Amino acid sequence: MGTLVVAGVGLIGGSLALAARHAGRVGRVIGVGRSPANMQRALELGVVDEVSHDIAEACARADMVLLATPVGQMAALMRAMAPVLPAHTIVTDAGSTKGDVAALMRACLPAQLAHCVPAHPIAGSDLSGAAAAQYGLYQNRKVVLTPLPETAAAAVEAVRTLWQACGASVHEMSAAEHDSVFASVSHLPHVLAFAFVDMIAAHPDAARRFDFAATGFRDFTRIAGSHPEMWRDIALANRDALLAELADYQAQLATLEALIASADADAMQQLFERARHARLAWHQRFVRGN
Amino acid sequence: MGTLVVAGVGLIGGSLALAARHAGRVGRVIGVGRSPANMQRALELGVVDEVSHDIAEACARADMVLLATPVGQMAALMRAMAPVLPAHTIVTDAGSTKGDVAALMRACLPAQLAHCVPAHPIAGSDLSGAAAAQYGLYQNRKVVLTPLPETAAAAVEAVRTLWQACGASVHEMSAAEHDSVFASVSHLPHVLAFAFVDMIAAHPDAARRFDFAATGFRDFTRIAGSHPEMWRDIALANRDALLAELADYQAQLATLEALIASADADAMQQLFERARHARLAWHQRFVRGN
Repeated sequence: MGTLVVAGVGLIGGSLALAARHAGRVGRVIGVGRSPANMQRALELGVVDEVSHDIAEACARADMVLLATPVGQMAALMRAMAPVLPAHTIVTDAGSTKGDVAALMRACLPAQLAHCVPAHPIAGSDLSGAAAAQYGLYQNRKVVLTPLPETAAAAVEAVRTLWQACGASVHEMSAAEHDSVFASVSHLPHVLAFAFVDMIAAHPDAARRFDFAATGFRDFTRIAGSHPEMWRDIALANRDALLAELADYQAQLATLEALIASADADAMQQLFERARHARLAWHQRFVRGN
Repeated sequence: MGTLVVAGVGLIGGSLALAARHAGRVGRVIGVGRSPANMQRALELGVVDEVSHDIAEACARADMVLLATPVGQMAALMRAMAPVLPAHTIVTDAGSTKGDVAALMRACLPAQLAHCVPAHPIAGSDLSGAAAAQYGLYQNRKVVLTPLPETAAAAVEAVRTLWQACGASVHEMSAAEHDSVFASVSHLPHVLAFAFVDMIAAHPDAARRFDFAATGFRDFTRIAGSHPEMWRDIALANRDALLAELADYQAQLATLEALIASADADAMQQLFERARHARLAWHQRFVRGN
Protein backbone atom coordinates (compact mmCIF):
# COMPACT_ATOMS: atom_id res chain seq x y z
CA MET A 1 0.00 0.00 0.00
CA GLY A 2 1.26 3.46 -0.82
CA THR A 3 -0.44 6.00 1.41
CA LEU A 4 -2.40 5.37 4.58
CA VAL A 5 -4.46 8.17 6.07
CA VAL A 6 -5.10 7.74 9.78
CA ALA A 7 -7.88 9.93 11.15
CA GLY A 8 -7.44 10.05 14.92
CA VAL A 9 -3.78 9.41 15.78
CA GLY A 10 -4.22 8.06 19.30
CA LEU A 11 -3.41 4.71 20.84
CA ILE A 12 -5.41 2.72 18.30
CA GLY A 13 -4.68 4.61 15.07
CA GLY A 14 -1.12 5.46 16.02
CA SER A 15 -0.29 1.87 16.93
CA LEU A 16 -1.67 0.60 13.62
CA ALA A 17 0.46 3.19 11.80
CA LEU A 18 3.60 2.12 13.67
CA ALA A 19 2.90 -1.60 13.21
CA ALA A 20 2.13 -1.24 9.50
CA ARG A 21 5.39 0.68 9.00
CA HIS A 22 7.30 -1.84 11.11
CA ALA A 23 5.93 -4.64 8.91
CA GLY A 24 6.85 -2.75 5.73
CA ARG A 25 3.23 -2.61 4.65
CA VAL A 26 2.85 1.11 4.05
CA GLY A 27 4.76 3.79 2.16
CA ARG A 28 3.53 7.00 3.73
CA VAL A 29 1.27 7.73 6.70
CA ILE A 30 -0.70 10.95 6.83
CA GLY A 31 -2.23 11.76 10.20
CA VAL A 32 -5.36 13.85 10.58
CA GLY A 33 -6.57 14.99 13.98
CA ARG A 34 -8.31 17.70 16.00
CA SER A 35 -5.57 18.44 18.51
CA PRO A 36 -2.58 20.34 17.06
CA ALA A 37 -0.46 19.37 20.08
CA ASN A 38 -1.22 15.67 19.61
CA MET A 39 -0.55 15.83 15.87
CA GLN A 40 2.76 17.59 16.50
CA ARG A 41 3.67 14.85 18.98
CA ALA A 42 2.72 12.16 16.42
CA LEU A 43 5.04 13.77 13.89
CA GLU A 44 7.92 14.13 16.37
CA LEU A 45 7.58 10.50 17.45
CA GLY A 46 7.54 9.24 13.88
CA VAL A 47 4.06 7.80 14.25
CA VAL A 48 3.08 9.64 11.06
CA ASP A 49 5.15 11.04 8.18
CA GLU A 50 2.95 14.03 7.61
CA VAL A 51 0.15 15.88 9.31
CA SER A 52 -2.87 17.33 7.58
CA HIS A 53 -5.68 19.37 9.05
CA ASP A 54 -7.86 18.79 6.02
CA ILE A 55 -9.35 15.31 5.84
CA ALA A 56 -10.50 15.80 2.22
CA GLU A 57 -7.08 16.93 1.05
CA ALA A 58 -5.43 13.95 2.76
CA CYS A 59 -7.96 11.38 1.57
CA ALA A 60 -7.62 12.51 -2.03
CA ARG A 61 -4.09 11.03 -1.83
CA ALA A 62 -5.02 7.88 0.15
CA ASP A 63 -4.87 4.21 -0.81
CA MET A 64 -6.45 3.34 2.51
CA VAL A 65 -8.21 5.46 5.12
CA LEU A 66 -8.41 4.27 8.73
CA LEU A 67 -11.02 6.04 10.83
CA ALA A 68 -9.67 5.68 14.37
CA THR A 69 -11.69 8.45 15.98
CA PRO A 70 -14.64 8.03 18.32
CA VAL A 71 -17.60 6.79 16.29
CA GLY A 72 -19.38 10.09 16.98
CA GLN A 73 -16.90 11.91 14.72
CA MET A 74 -17.01 9.48 11.80
CA ALA A 75 -20.06 10.83 9.95
CA ALA A 76 -18.49 14.26 9.48
CA LEU A 77 -15.21 12.70 8.34
CA MET A 78 -16.95 10.41 5.83
CA ARG A 79 -19.00 13.28 4.42
CA ALA A 80 -15.88 15.39 4.03
CA MET A 81 -13.96 12.68 2.19
CA ALA A 82 -16.82 11.38 0.04
CA PRO A 83 -16.45 13.89 -2.84
CA VAL A 84 -12.70 13.36 -3.22
CA LEU A 85 -12.04 9.68 -2.48
CA PRO A 86 -10.24 7.89 -5.30
CA ALA A 87 -12.32 4.96 -6.53
CA HIS A 88 -9.77 2.35 -5.39
CA THR A 89 -9.34 3.72 -1.86
CA ILE A 90 -10.27 1.36 0.95
CA VAL A 91 -12.09 2.86 3.91
CA THR A 92 -11.87 0.99 7.18
CA ASP A 93 -12.29 1.91 10.84
CA ALA A 94 -11.44 0.82 14.36
CA GLY A 95 -14.72 1.50 16.13
CA SER A 96 -16.04 -0.67 18.95
CA THR A 97 -19.48 -0.93 17.34
CA LYS A 98 -20.11 -2.04 13.81
CA GLY A 99 -23.80 -1.76 12.88
CA ASP A 100 -23.66 2.02 13.26
CA VAL A 101 -20.41 2.33 11.28
CA ALA A 102 -21.87 0.18 8.48
CA ALA A 103 -24.96 2.43 8.43
CA LEU A 104 -22.76 5.54 8.29
CA MET A 105 -20.77 4.13 5.39
CA ARG A 106 -23.99 3.31 3.60
CA ALA A 107 -25.34 6.83 4.20
CA CYS A 108 -22.17 8.85 3.60
CA LEU A 109 -20.11 6.78 1.15
CA PRO A 110 -22.71 5.11 -1.11
CA ALA A 111 -20.35 5.11 -4.09
CA GLN A 112 -17.51 3.52 -2.10
CA LEU A 113 -19.25 0.52 -0.51
CA ALA A 114 -17.25 -2.06 -2.43
CA HIS A 115 -14.16 -0.67 -0.67
CA CYS A 116 -15.66 -0.19 2.78
CA VAL A 117 -14.47 -2.67 5.45
CA PRO A 118 -15.81 -2.01 8.96
CA ALA A 119 -13.34 -3.40 11.51
CA HIS A 120 -12.86 -3.64 15.26
CA PRO A 121 -9.42 -4.31 16.72
CA ILE A 122 -9.83 -5.74 20.24
CA ALA A 123 -7.11 -3.83 21.98
CA GLY A 124 -6.96 -0.93 24.30
CA SER A 125 -5.31 0.54 27.31
CA ASP A 126 -5.88 3.20 29.91
CA LEU A 127 -3.47 5.33 27.92
CA SER A 128 -4.43 7.57 25.04
CA GLY A 129 -2.92 9.98 22.54
CA ALA A 130 -0.18 9.59 19.96
CA ALA A 131 2.44 9.22 22.71
CA ALA A 132 0.73 5.98 23.82
CA ALA A 133 1.07 4.38 20.37
CA GLN A 134 3.26 1.26 20.23
CA TYR A 135 3.91 -1.02 17.30
CA GLY A 136 3.37 -4.22 19.30
CA LEU A 137 -0.13 -3.33 20.49
CA TYR A 138 -1.87 -5.76 18.13
CA GLN A 139 0.47 -8.70 18.60
CA ASN A 140 -1.73 -11.74 19.36
CA ARG A 141 -4.84 -9.58 19.60
CA LYS A 142 -8.09 -10.21 17.73
CA VAL A 143 -9.51 -8.02 14.97
CA VAL A 144 -13.10 -8.53 13.81
CA LEU A 145 -14.03 -7.55 10.24
CA THR A 146 -17.72 -7.09 9.42
CA PRO A 147 -17.82 -6.63 5.62
CA LEU A 148 -20.94 -5.19 4.01
CA PRO A 149 -22.79 -7.33 1.47
CA GLU A 150 -21.36 -4.93 -1.12
CA THR A 151 -17.75 -5.13 0.07
CA ALA A 152 -15.39 -6.60 -2.52
CA ALA A 153 -13.43 -9.67 -1.45
CA ALA A 154 -10.18 -7.94 -2.42
CA ALA A 155 -10.90 -5.05 -0.04
CA VAL A 156 -11.55 -7.45 2.83
CA GLU A 157 -8.35 -9.27 1.94
CA ALA A 158 -6.32 -6.04 1.95
CA VAL A 159 -7.54 -5.08 5.42
CA ARG A 160 -7.12 -8.64 6.69
CA THR A 161 -3.54 -8.77 5.39
CA LEU A 162 -2.68 -5.43 6.99
CA TRP A 163 -3.92 -6.50 10.43
CA GLN A 164 -2.27 -9.90 10.16
CA ALA A 165 1.01 -8.17 9.31
CA CYS A 166 0.57 -6.24 12.58
CA GLY A 167 0.40 -9.53 14.49
CA ALA A 168 -3.36 -9.78 14.92
CA SER A 169 -5.64 -12.74 14.28
CA VAL A 170 -8.50 -11.69 12.02
CA HIS A 171 -12.10 -12.91 12.34
CA GLU A 172 -15.18 -12.21 10.25
CA MET A 173 -18.80 -11.98 11.28
CA SER A 174 -21.86 -9.88 10.51
CA ALA A 175 -22.17 -6.47 12.10
CA ALA A 176 -25.28 -7.67 13.94
CA GLU A 177 -23.48 -10.65 15.44
CA HIS A 178 -20.51 -8.48 16.34
CA ASP A 179 -22.68 -5.96 18.13
CA SER A 180 -24.56 -8.63 20.04
CA VAL A 181 -21.37 -10.43 21.10
CA PHE A 182 -19.67 -7.23 22.23
CA ALA A 183 -22.77 -5.90 23.94
CA SER A 184 -22.67 -8.97 26.14
CA VAL A 185 -18.96 -9.42 26.91
CA SER A 186 -17.79 -5.81 26.78
CA HIS A 187 -20.41 -3.06 26.68
CA LEU A 188 -22.68 -4.51 29.36
CA PRO A 189 -19.90 -5.04 31.94
CA HIS A 190 -18.69 -1.49 31.36
CA VAL A 191 -22.10 0.04 32.06
CA LEU A 192 -22.62 -2.34 35.00
CA ALA A 193 -19.32 -1.21 36.51
CA PHE A 194 -20.08 2.49 35.96
CA ALA A 195 -23.53 2.01 37.54
CA PHE A 196 -22.10 0.12 40.51
CA VAL A 197 -19.42 2.69 41.39
CA ASP A 198 -21.84 5.57 40.91
CA MET A 199 -24.25 3.91 43.32
CA ILE A 200 -21.59 3.52 46.04
CA ALA A 201 -20.36 7.07 45.48
CA ALA A 202 -23.90 8.39 46.02
CA HIS A 203 -24.24 6.74 49.45
CA PRO A 204 -24.35 9.13 52.42
CA ASP A 205 -21.47 7.11 53.91
CA ALA A 206 -19.59 6.59 50.63
CA ALA A 207 -16.22 7.38 52.20
CA ARG A 208 -16.69 4.71 54.88
CA ARG A 209 -17.71 2.16 52.25
CA PHE A 210 -14.81 2.95 49.94
CA ASP A 211 -12.45 2.63 52.94
CA PHE A 212 -13.19 -1.08 53.19
CA ALA A 213 -13.24 -1.91 49.49
CA ALA A 214 -10.46 -4.36 48.66
CA THR A 215 -9.00 -6.32 45.76
CA GLY A 216 -12.29 -7.85 44.58
CA PHE A 217 -13.76 -4.36 44.34
CA ARG A 218 -10.60 -3.11 42.64
CA ASP A 219 -10.81 -5.63 39.80
CA PHE A 220 -14.59 -5.56 39.43
CA THR A 221 -14.55 -1.77 39.06
CA ARG A 222 -11.38 -1.25 37.01
CA ILE A 223 -13.39 -0.63 33.85
CA ALA A 224 -15.42 2.08 35.64
CA GLY A 225 -12.24 4.14 35.19
CA SER A 226 -12.74 4.02 31.41
CA HIS A 227 -13.31 7.06 29.22
CA PRO A 228 -16.84 8.40 29.88
CA GLU A 229 -17.36 10.05 26.49
CA MET A 230 -16.14 7.01 24.58
CA TRP A 231 -18.41 4.67 26.54
CA ARG A 232 -21.37 7.01 26.23
CA ASP A 233 -20.87 6.88 22.46
CA ILE A 234 -20.52 3.09 22.43
CA ALA A 235 -23.63 2.63 24.58
CA LEU A 236 -25.62 4.89 22.30
CA ALA A 237 -24.20 3.44 19.08
CA ASN A 238 -25.01 -0.10 20.19
CA ARG A 239 -28.15 0.85 22.07
CA ASP A 240 -30.49 -1.92 20.90
CA ALA A 241 -28.09 -4.79 21.56
CA LEU A 242 -27.00 -3.26 24.85
CA LEU A 243 -30.59 -2.77 26.02
CA ALA A 244 -31.32 -6.41 25.15
CA GLU A 245 -28.35 -7.58 27.23
CA LEU A 246 -29.26 -5.23 30.06
CA ALA A 247 -32.82 -6.61 30.09
CA ASP A 248 -31.43 -10.17 30.24
CA TYR A 249 -29.19 -9.17 33.10
CA GLN A 250 -32.02 -7.53 35.01
CA ALA A 251 -34.01 -10.75 34.62
CA GLN A 252 -31.00 -12.72 35.85
CA LEU A 253 -30.73 -10.44 38.89
CA ALA A 254 -34.43 -10.85 39.61
CA THR A 255 -33.93 -14.63 39.55
CA LEU A 256 -30.95 -14.38 41.87
CA GLU A 257 -32.79 -11.98 44.16
CA ALA A 258 -35.62 -14.52 44.50
CA LEU A 259 -33.13 -17.28 45.32
CA ILE A 260 -31.50 -15.18 48.02
CA ALA A 261 -34.83 -13.95 49.42
CA SER A 262 -36.12 -17.52 49.69
CA ALA A 263 -32.75 -18.72 51.01
CA ASP A 264 -32.60 -21.36 48.29
CA ALA A 265 -29.08 -22.45 49.17
CA ASP A 266 -28.86 -25.28 46.63
CA ALA A 267 -29.94 -23.16 43.67
CA MET A 268 -27.62 -20.34 44.73
CA GLN A 269 -24.70 -22.70 44.98
CA GLN A 270 -25.52 -24.21 41.58
CA LEU A 271 -25.61 -20.77 39.97
CA PHE A 272 -22.32 -19.77 41.60
CA GLU A 273 -20.73 -23.08 40.59
CA ARG A 274 -21.84 -22.76 36.97
CA ALA A 275 -20.38 -19.26 36.89
CA ARG A 276 -17.13 -20.30 38.54
CA HIS A 277 -16.71 -23.25 36.20
CA ALA A 278 -17.36 -21.11 33.11
CA ARG A 279 -15.07 -18.34 34.33
CA LEU A 280 -12.16 -20.66 35.12
CA ALA A 281 -12.51 -22.46 31.77
CA TRP A 282 -12.66 -19.13 29.94
CA HIS A 283 -9.62 -17.81 31.77
CA GLN A 284 -7.52 -20.86 30.89
CA ARG A 285 -8.31 -20.37 27.20
CA PHE A 286 -7.73 -16.62 27.45
CA VAL A 287 -4.31 -17.00 29.05
CA ARG A 288 -3.26 -19.53 26.41
CA GLY A 289 -4.44 -17.26 23.58
CA ASN A 290 -2.76 -14.07 24.80
CA MET B 1 -0.95 -15.58 75.09
CA GLY B 2 -0.28 -19.17 75.90
CA THR B 3 -2.40 -21.43 73.70
CA LEU B 4 -4.27 -20.47 70.56
CA VAL B 5 -6.78 -22.90 69.08
CA VAL B 6 -7.40 -22.35 65.38
CA ALA B 7 -10.51 -24.07 64.06
CA GLY B 8 -10.13 -24.23 60.28
CA VAL B 9 -6.43 -24.20 59.36
CA GLY B 10 -6.69 -22.76 55.86
CA LEU B 11 -5.36 -19.59 54.30
CA ILE B 12 -6.98 -17.31 56.88
CA GLY B 13 -6.52 -19.31 60.08
CA GLY B 14 -3.15 -20.72 59.09
CA SER B 15 -1.77 -17.30 58.17
CA LEU B 16 -2.89 -15.86 61.52
CA ALA B 17 -1.18 -18.75 63.31
CA LEU B 18 2.06 -18.19 61.39
CA ALA B 19 1.98 -14.42 61.84
CA ALA B 20 1.23 -14.67 65.59
CA ARG B 21 4.11 -17.09 66.02
CA HIS B 22 6.41 -14.91 63.90
CA ALA B 23 5.54 -11.94 66.13
CA GLY B 24 6.19 -13.95 69.29
CA ARG B 25 2.60 -13.50 70.41
CA VAL B 26 1.61 -17.11 71.01
CA GLY B 27 3.08 -20.06 72.87
CA ARG B 28 1.34 -23.04 71.33
CA VAL B 29 -1.06 -23.37 68.38
CA ILE B 30 -3.53 -26.26 68.28
CA GLY B 31 -5.21 -26.79 64.93
CA VAL B 32 -8.65 -28.34 64.58
CA GLY B 33 -10.09 -29.26 61.20
CA ARG B 34 -12.26 -31.62 59.21
CA SER B 35 -9.70 -32.78 56.66
CA PRO B 36 -7.06 -35.16 58.06
CA ALA B 37 -4.84 -34.53 55.01
CA ASN B 38 -4.97 -30.76 55.49
CA MET B 39 -4.29 -31.05 59.22
CA GLN B 40 -1.32 -33.31 58.54
CA ARG B 41 0.00 -30.75 56.07
CA ALA B 42 -0.48 -27.95 58.63
CA LEU B 43 1.58 -29.94 61.11
CA GLU B 44 4.34 -30.74 58.60
CA LEU B 45 4.58 -27.10 57.53
CA GLY B 46 4.79 -25.87 61.12
CA VAL B 47 1.58 -23.88 60.79
CA VAL B 48 0.35 -25.55 63.99
CA ASP B 49 2.20 -27.26 66.84
CA GLU B 50 -0.44 -29.86 67.42
CA VAL B 51 -3.52 -31.23 65.77
CA SER B 52 -6.72 -32.18 67.55
CA HIS B 53 -9.84 -33.74 66.13
CA ASP B 54 -11.85 -32.81 69.20
CA ILE B 55 -12.76 -29.13 69.38
CA ALA B 56 -13.92 -29.44 73.02
CA GLU B 57 -10.71 -31.12 74.14
CA ALA B 58 -8.62 -28.45 72.41
CA CYS B 59 -10.69 -25.50 73.64
CA ALA B 60 -10.48 -26.69 77.23
CA ARG B 61 -6.77 -25.80 76.99
CA ALA B 62 -7.17 -22.54 75.04
CA ASP B 63 -6.44 -18.93 75.99
CA MET B 64 -7.92 -17.81 72.70
CA VAL B 65 -10.02 -19.63 70.11
CA LEU B 66 -10.08 -18.40 66.49
CA LEU B 67 -12.96 -19.72 64.42
CA ALA B 68 -11.61 -19.57 60.86
CA THR B 69 -14.08 -21.97 59.27
CA PRO B 70 -16.95 -21.05 56.96
CA VAL B 71 -19.66 -19.35 59.05
CA GLY B 72 -21.95 -22.33 58.40
CA GLN B 73 -19.76 -24.53 60.61
CA MET B 74 -19.43 -22.13 63.53
CA ALA B 75 -22.63 -22.97 65.42
CA ALA B 76 -21.63 -26.61 65.85
CA LEU B 77 -18.14 -25.59 66.97
CA MET B 78 -19.44 -23.08 69.49
CA ARG B 79 -21.91 -25.57 70.91
CA ALA B 80 -19.18 -28.16 71.28
CA MET B 81 -16.82 -25.81 73.09
CA ALA B 82 -19.40 -24.07 75.29
CA PRO B 83 -19.41 -26.62 78.15
CA VAL B 84 -15.61 -26.70 78.49
CA LEU B 85 -14.37 -23.18 77.74
CA PRO B 86 -12.28 -21.72 80.56
CA ALA B 87 -13.83 -18.47 81.82
CA HIS B 88 -10.91 -16.32 80.65
CA THR B 89 -10.77 -17.74 77.10
CA ILE B 90 -11.34 -15.25 74.31
CA VAL B 91 -13.42 -16.42 71.36
CA THR B 92 -12.94 -14.60 68.08
CA ASP B 93 -13.55 -15.43 64.42
CA ALA B 94 -12.57 -14.48 60.90
CA GLY B 95 -15.94 -14.61 59.18
CA SER B 96 -16.91 -12.25 56.36
CA THR B 97 -20.25 -11.43 58.01
CA LYS B 98 -20.66 -10.24 61.56
CA GLY B 99 -24.33 -9.93 62.53
CA ASP B 100 -24.81 -13.67 62.15
CA VAL B 101 -21.63 -14.51 64.10
CA ALA B 102 -22.68 -12.17 66.90
CA ALA B 103 -26.09 -13.88 66.99
CA LEU B 104 -24.42 -17.30 67.11
CA MET B 105 -22.18 -16.25 69.98
CA ARG B 106 -25.21 -14.92 71.82
CA ALA B 107 -27.11 -18.19 71.23
CA CYS B 108 -24.31 -20.70 71.79
CA LEU B 109 -21.92 -18.99 74.21
CA PRO B 110 -24.17 -16.93 76.49
CA ALA B 111 -21.81 -17.31 79.45
CA GLN B 112 -18.78 -16.20 77.44
CA LEU B 113 -20.05 -12.97 75.86
CA ALA B 114 -17.61 -10.73 77.78
CA HIS B 115 -14.83 -12.61 75.98
CA CYS B 116 -16.42 -12.83 72.52
CA VAL B 117 -14.88 -10.57 69.86
CA PRO B 118 -16.35 -10.99 66.36
CA ALA B 119 -13.72 -10.02 63.78
CA HIS B 120 -13.25 -9.85 60.03
CA PRO B 121 -9.76 -9.74 58.52
CA ILE B 122 -9.97 -8.24 55.01
CA ALA B 123 -7.63 -10.58 53.23
CA GLY B 124 -7.98 -13.46 50.90
CA SER B 125 -6.63 -15.16 47.88
CA ASP B 126 -7.65 -17.69 45.27
CA LEU B 127 -5.60 -20.19 47.24
CA SER B 128 -6.89 -22.24 50.13
CA GLY B 129 -5.75 -24.87 52.59
CA ALA B 130 -2.95 -24.94 55.13
CA ALA B 131 -0.35 -25.00 52.35
CA ALA B 132 -1.51 -21.51 51.28
CA ALA B 133 -0.87 -20.00 54.71
CA GLN B 134 1.80 -17.29 54.86
CA TYR B 135 2.84 -15.15 57.78
CA GLY B 136 2.81 -11.90 55.79
CA LEU B 137 -0.80 -12.20 54.63
CA TYR B 138 -2.09 -9.53 57.02
CA GLN B 139 0.69 -7.01 56.54
CA ASN B 140 -1.00 -3.66 55.81
CA ARG B 141 -4.43 -5.28 55.60
CA LYS B 142 -7.48 -4.13 57.51
CA VAL B 143 -9.23 -6.07 60.27
CA VAL B 144 -12.67 -5.01 61.47
CA LEU B 145 -13.72 -5.81 65.06
CA THR B 146 -17.42 -5.67 65.92
CA PRO B 147 -17.55 -6.13 69.71
CA LEU B 148 -20.84 -7.04 71.38
CA PRO B 149 -22.28 -4.64 73.95
CA GLU B 150 -21.22 -7.24 76.52
CA THR B 151 -17.65 -7.62 75.26
CA ALA B 152 -15.05 -6.55 77.84
CA ALA B 153 -12.63 -3.84 76.74
CA ALA B 154 -9.70 -6.09 77.68
CA ALA B 155 -10.90 -8.82 75.31
CA VAL B 156 -11.18 -6.33 72.43
CA GLU B 157 -7.73 -5.07 73.28
CA ALA B 158 -6.25 -8.58 73.26
CA VAL B 159 -7.65 -9.32 69.80
CA ARG B 160 -6.65 -5.87 68.52
CA THR B 161 -3.10 -6.33 69.79
CA LEU B 162 -2.82 -9.76 68.17
CA TRP B 163 -3.90 -8.49 64.74
CA GLN B 164 -1.71 -5.40 65.00
CA ALA B 165 1.24 -7.65 65.80
CA CYS B 166 0.47 -9.46 62.54
CA GLY B 167 0.81 -6.19 60.65
CA ALA B 168 -2.87 -5.33 60.26
CA SER B 169 -4.64 -2.04 60.93
CA VAL B 170 -7.61 -2.63 63.21
CA HIS B 171 -10.96 -0.84 62.94
CA GLU B 172 -14.09 -1.04 65.08
CA MET B 173 -17.72 -0.67 64.08
CA SER B 174 -21.07 -2.23 64.88
CA ALA B 175 -21.96 -5.55 63.28
CA ALA B 176 -24.85 -3.85 61.47
CA GLU B 177 -22.60 -1.20 59.96
CA HIS B 178 -20.03 -3.82 59.03
CA ASP B 179 -22.59 -5.94 57.25
CA SER B 180 -24.03 -3.00 55.34
CA VAL B 181 -20.59 -1.76 54.26
CA PHE B 182 -19.44 -5.19 53.11
CA ALA B 183 -22.73 -5.99 51.44
CA SER B 184 -22.13 -2.97 49.23
CA VAL B 185 -18.41 -3.13 48.46
CA SER B 186 -17.84 -6.89 48.57
CA HIS B 187 -20.88 -9.16 48.69
CA LEU B 188 -22.89 -7.36 46.01
CA PRO B 189 -20.08 -7.29 43.43
CA HIS B 190 -19.46 -10.99 43.99
CA VAL B 191 -23.07 -11.95 43.31
CA LEU B 192 -23.20 -9.51 40.37
CA ALA B 193 -20.14 -11.17 38.84
CA PHE B 194 -21.50 -14.69 39.40
CA ALA B 195 -24.83 -13.66 37.83
CA PHE B 196 -23.11 -12.03 34.86
CA VAL B 197 -20.90 -14.99 33.97
CA ASP B 198 -23.75 -17.45 34.46
CA MET B 199 -25.87 -15.40 32.05
CA ILE B 200 -23.19 -15.45 29.34
CA ALA B 201 -22.56 -19.17 29.88
CA ALA B 202 -26.27 -19.87 29.37
CA HIS B 203 -26.35 -18.19 25.93
CA PRO B 204 -26.84 -20.53 22.97
CA ASP B 205 -23.69 -19.00 21.46
CA ALA B 206 -21.75 -18.81 24.72
CA ALA B 207 -18.55 -20.15 23.13
CA ARG B 208 -18.59 -17.44 20.46
CA ARG B 209 -19.16 -14.76 23.09
CA PHE B 210 -16.41 -16.01 25.39
CA ASP B 211 -14.05 -16.08 22.38
CA PHE B 212 -14.17 -12.30 22.14
CA ALA B 213 -14.07 -11.47 25.82
CA ALA B 214 -10.93 -9.51 26.66
CA THR B 215 -9.15 -7.81 29.54
CA GLY B 216 -12.15 -5.78 30.74
CA PHE B 217 -14.18 -8.98 31.00
CA ARG B 218 -11.25 -10.72 32.69
CA ASP B 219 -11.03 -8.21 35.52
CA PHE B 220 -14.78 -7.66 35.91
CA THR B 221 -15.35 -11.41 36.27
CA ARG B 222 -12.31 -12.43 38.32
CA ILE B 223 -14.39 -12.71 41.48
CA ALA B 224 -16.83 -15.05 39.70
CA GLY B 225 -14.03 -17.61 40.14
CA SER B 226 -14.49 -17.40 43.92
CA HIS B 227 -15.54 -20.31 46.10
CA PRO B 228 -19.25 -21.05 45.46
CA GLU B 229 -20.01 -22.60 48.85
CA MET B 230 -18.31 -19.81 50.75
CA TRP B 231 -20.17 -17.12 48.82
CA ARG B 232 -23.46 -18.94 49.13
CA ASP B 233 -22.94 -18.89 52.91
CA ILE B 234 -21.96 -15.22 52.93
CA ALA B 235 -24.96 -14.25 50.80
CA LEU B 236 -27.29 -16.16 53.10
CA ALA B 237 -25.64 -14.96 56.30
CA ASN B 238 -25.88 -11.33 55.20
CA ARG B 239 -29.13 -11.76 53.33
CA ASP B 240 -30.98 -8.64 54.51
CA ALA B 241 -28.15 -6.21 53.85
CA LEU B 242 -27.33 -7.89 50.54
CA LEU B 243 -30.96 -7.77 49.39
CA ALA B 244 -31.08 -4.07 50.26
CA GLU B 245 -27.97 -3.41 48.17
CA LEU B 246 -29.27 -5.56 45.34
CA ALA B 247 -32.55 -3.62 45.32
CA ASP B 248 -30.60 -0.35 45.17
CA TYR B 249 -28.54 -1.70 42.29
CA GLN B 250 -31.62 -2.84 40.40
CA ALA B 251 -33.06 0.66 40.80
CA GLN B 252 -29.78 2.12 39.55
CA LEU B 253 -29.89 -0.19 36.50
CA ALA B 254 -33.48 0.83 35.81
CA THR B 255 -32.35 4.47 35.84
CA LEU B 256 -29.47 3.74 33.52
CA GLU B 257 -31.69 1.68 31.24
CA ALA B 258 -34.06 4.64 30.92
CA LEU B 259 -31.15 6.96 30.08
CA ILE B 260 -29.91 4.62 27.37
CA ALA B 261 -33.39 3.95 25.99
CA SER B 262 -34.09 7.67 25.71
CA ALA B 263 -30.55 8.32 24.39
CA ASP B 264 -29.96 10.91 27.10
CA ALA B 265 -26.32 11.40 26.21
CA ASP B 266 -25.64 14.16 28.74
CA ALA B 267 -27.03 12.26 31.71
CA MET B 268 -25.21 9.07 30.64
CA GLN B 269 -21.94 10.92 30.39
CA GLN B 270 -22.48 12.56 33.78
CA LEU B 271 -23.14 9.18 35.41
CA PHE B 272 -20.06 7.63 33.76
CA GLU B 273 -17.95 10.66 34.76
CA ARG B 274 -19.08 10.51 38.39
CA ALA B 275 -18.23 6.81 38.46
CA ARG B 276 -14.85 7.31 36.80
CA HIS B 277 -13.94 10.15 39.14
CA ALA B 278 -14.93 8.15 42.22
CA ARG B 279 -13.13 5.03 41.01
CA LEU B 280 -9.87 6.85 40.20
CA ALA B 281 -9.93 8.68 43.55
CA TRP B 282 -10.61 5.42 45.37
CA HIS B 283 -7.83 3.62 43.54
CA GLN B 284 -5.26 6.28 44.40
CA ARG B 285 -6.11 5.93 48.09
CA PHE B 286 -6.16 2.14 47.85
CA VAL B 287 -2.72 1.94 46.23
CA ARG B 288 -1.27 4.29 48.85
CA GLY B 289 -2.78 2.27 51.68
CA ASN B 290 -1.67 -1.17 50.49
